[in-house]
Amino acid sequence: MAFSEFRPLDEKVLIEYIKATPSLASKLGNKFDNLTIKEVGDGNLNFVFIVVGSSGSFVIKQALPYIRLIGESWPMTKERAYFEALALKEHGSLSPDHVPEVYHFDRTMSLIGMHYLEPPHIILRKGLIAGVEYPLLADHMSDYIAKTLFFTSLLYHNTTDHKKAVAEFCGNVELCRLTEQVVFSDPYKVSQYNRWTSPYLDSDAEAVRGDNALKLEVAELKSLFCERAQALVHGDLHTSSVMVTHDSTQVIDPEFAFYGPMGFDIGAFLGNLILAFYAQDGHANDQNDRKAYKAWILRTIENTWNLFDRKFLALWDANKDSGDAYLPAIYNNPELVQLVQKKFIKDLLHDSLGFGAAKMIRRIVGVAHVEDFESIADASKRAGCERRALELAKLLLKERKKFQDINEVISAILQHQ
Amino acid sequence: MAFSEFRPLDEKVLIEYIKATPSLASKLGNKFDNLTIKEVGDGNLNFVFIVVGSSGSFVIKQALPYIRLIGESWPMTKERAYFEALALKEHGSLSPDHVPEVYHFDRTMSLIGMHYLEPPHIILRKGLIAGVEYPLLADHMSDYIAKTLFFTSLLYHNTTDHKKAVAEFCGNVELCRLTEQVVFSDPYKVSQYNRWTSPYLDSDAEAVRGDNALKLEVAELKSLFCERAQALVHGDLHTSSVMVTHDSTQVIDPEFAFYGPMGFDIGAFLGNLILAFYAQDGHANDQNDRKAYKAWILRTIENTWNLFDRKFLALWDANKDSGDAYLPAIYNNPELVQLVQKKFIKDLLHDSLGFGAAKMIRRIVGVAHVEDFESIADASKRAGCERRALELAKLLLKERKKFQDINEVISAILQHQ
Repeated sequence: MAFSEFRPLDEKVLIEYIKATPSLASKLGNKFDNLTIKEVGDGNLNFVFIVVGSSGSFVIKQALPYIRLIGESWPMTKERAYFEALALKEHGSLSPDHVPEVYHFDRTMSLIGMHYLEPPHIILRKGLIAGVEYPLLADHMSDYIAKTLFFTSLLYHNTTDHKKAVAEFCGNVELCRLTEQVVFSDPYKVSQYNRWTSPYLDSDAEAVRGDNALKLEVAELKSLFCERAQALVHGDLHTSSVMVTHDSTQVIDPEFAFYGPMGFDIGAFLGNLILAFYAQDGHANDQNDRKAYKAWILRTIENTWNLFDRKFLALWDANKDSGDAYLPAIYNNPELVQLVQKKFIKDLLHDSLGFGAAKMIRRIVGVAHVEDFESIADASKRAGCERRALELAKLLLKERKKFQDINEVISAILQHQ
Repeated sequence: MAFSEFRPLDEKVLIEYIKATPSLASKLGNKFDNLTIKEVGDGNLNFVFIVVGSSGSFVIKQALPYIRLIGESWPMTKERAYFEALALKEHGSLSPDHVPEVYHFDRTMSLIGMHYLEPPHIILRKGLIAGVEYPLLADHMSDYIAKTLFFTSLLYHNTTDHKKAVAEFCGNVELCRLTEQVVFSDPYKVSQYNRWTSPYLDSDAEAVRGDNALKLEVAELKSLFCERAQALVHGDLHTSSVMVTHDSTQVIDPEFAFYGPMGFDIGAFLGNLILAFYAQDGHANDQNDRKAYKAWILRTIENTWNLFDRKFLALWDANKDSGDAYLPAIYNNPELVQLVQKKFIKDLLHDSLGFGAAKMIRRIVGVAHVEDFESIADASKRAGCERRALELAKLLLKERKKFQDINEVISAILQHQ
């Protein structure tokens, strides 16, 4: 450990730290003469430094003991860096092609040193706003999701290992509590942090707060989120937690990781793709009506789910002797195996739709909005896009258990344009 | 701590231990001359010594590092005594009238010193076999269940306290694994430990192992058991974990305690009452046809559930500002509160019926049987009672989500006599 107590990084401190840390210094070939250091964090949660030398590079991420939201500072444990590093390592070992490698972790400094995702990697959300198609996105994300969820669930774990891991990640409760507040609570009540495109959506936000049927279903989802330790989920898998190029898909920032319901990750990703879909009309112009791009987003939603379904079940079939959930001596005939798998996948679709919808709603009437909509300058046009997304989300959340497959979800999206 | 390492107790060691332990010695008024010491454990899991002196008494329970089942010894952590003591203290603070007081706990010795439940306290199961009515049983058990489950759930806990407690009880995984095996696995596959009243129930046991619809539902219950940390459950709340007199009801032996689904406790108790009901025909004779007693058992089942329902909701109403599950700012109108409470109770009924049925099935075709049936000497008559119980259990397990209230359950029992 380079320092004996926590110090917020600046460029000078960082260089001193790197020189004193062999696992980082060696990545630069122990040459420190021509280092380029750039701080690229948004300053809301973490410092993020890109360090590039003549013989190598890495990223340094340091958690700060607060987060900033709309100008206000909330205290937030920097121990989240510990859980982020744990999750990066665990998910990285399961899906190495889609998770940046961790070179170094320092709990005292809340500091992670990891692989630098070089240009042209950009945040997926920015690509979606720009209208860029990523032909491998569904394949890559379904791969990441299937592997990280399958191998950290009781389909692969025995219950001894599972409970041990669950207990460890119970320590990340502060981050879970933030999710509970901003996803499952604030949008459904009057909160100083809520905002929306006013005055256009004033009555829509009020309708959310007054929708008993919606709140009844949100309670069930919150209970799943708080109580069901199904798998090690990323916990914040929206489209700004994914960096992409044409060929590469990398999942970053799992500081919200914990043992929770699988549908929370799937829903976060699909829900944010649906938000991207509804934002396209706001980005359309005379040069590009975005119709083809909207169709690509829908195909990506459909493919992500269907590929996930196929890959997840393939992992299940290939590992049917592992895990304590479905013992082969009990689930011992093809008809029964098909029954349990079909039920598992359908339940998971319903959970995913519920969580995805909750994530959509909170991005429209809650504290943290998405650039997909925020970048639509015309407030009236933006509100129109948001309202259509909100209506679809309310439908998905309330009626999620009626959907039989992803095609029915796509149809519902098309009907709510 | 009296001893620096674990020693199995015998009478001589015990006296030495008591003298060296002020919290125990003082209970006897520090007088050790005329002690009566009686070992009453069945030797399968624990030593249980009743210690009575001229000025006081207590029970000493020591966990042994194994359990015995049908002659075979399974290693089993004696750390379970730690979780038993934790649960006794937690549940005892919530329902002091129905949980024996803990005077002393020694983790090294896996030893609990607690209140001695004097005669005429007997094990409830023995009273049910003898045909004794306990007029306060439903009232007392509903009180215990409502309080212990409500106050250890997110209806009362905030998520910080909840996750901390969940993490602690993850340590009791070995006992959970025993339940997983004997309740959710063994009865549904060929296992050397399974037994049943053969040859009468041979085809019934085979039918359980070949029932795809049943196994599909058992998987859902096992997943709830392993993954859903809803409340601190007793974990083994059958009718031999309850001691009774006409006026007193005491819940003992929570060594299987962990954060799990509430329905697991409710189901265990109700399921064992249903077993007691089906055993009555085997205990009937010319002097007593047991018809009135069967009616009393059904009333007790009905009253236990309905009183639980009423008391649990009363606790909810009285503590609606506590707990992170249903914030009053969101659940802010009487209609909505009624909606969420009704849904909560109905879901809990369905869970309870599922777990209760699983507990019934395992007592008929699994390793550990119940004295209710075992005490019926005529094997053919016993098998008849067991078969009717098994058929009802299979129905409850598969169709549990169709039951609207406890009266429909009572009707189903009456139809399957």
